[in-house]
Amino acid sequence: MSLDPVHTDPQFYSVVFENERVRVLEYRDRPGDRTCEHSHPDMVIIPLSTFQRRLTVGGRSVEVRKSRHEAGWVPAQTHIGENIGDTVSHSLFVELKEPAR
Amino acid sequence: MSLDPVHTDPQFYSVVFENERVRVLEYRDRPGDRTCEHSHPDMVIIPLSTFQRRLTVGGRSVEVRKSRHEAGWVPAQTHIGENIGDTVSHSLFVELKEPAR
Repeated sequence: MSLDPVHTDPQFYSVVFENERVRVLEYRDRPGDRTCEHSHPDMVIIPLSTFQRRLTVGGRSVEVRKSRHEAGWVPAQTHIGENIGDTVSHSLFVELKEPAR
Repeated sequence: MSLDPVHTDPQFYSVVFENERVRVLEYRDRPGDRTCEHSHPDMVIIPLSTFQRRLTVGGRSVEVRKSRHEAGWVPAQTHIGENIGDTVSHSLFVELKEPAR
């Protein structure tokens, strides 16, 4: 079973750019929306809105708040994401295709 | 002489995130502003505004227009950038620290 978010949650994720080194995903959802379980490689998140989410990783949940345009690092992980705020969640993700050295 | 844009043009470039794999730069300028010559490794550009620039690479100039939030690829290069539009130029750059395989 593919854990690629473009396959598990095509209503939220789309590929906006891809080459040999990176894949850039756009993510959009609305308050209350929840993803299926999916995996990401190491990536940079660029929030395009300010939002609040719950991430469930291996049965443990963490709440995260992101500010618009505040770039951050997301280490490779498998998770479920849920929009627990009252704003849309809109981000770009720059996935690194090459494994860490 | 360092061609790192953070050193050549600190008034325009700042580091907003860095780890072993990536460095994320924020760039901001105003119409008419022009950088010194500087180098970038392979990177992804995330324009946060819509703008128009002239890039001079090895003595040849190209004009580029970028739309807000439209991510794109910038292959490793040394260039001079100039804001030739009538809007601020505001971008994030996700630089890949590891050389291509």
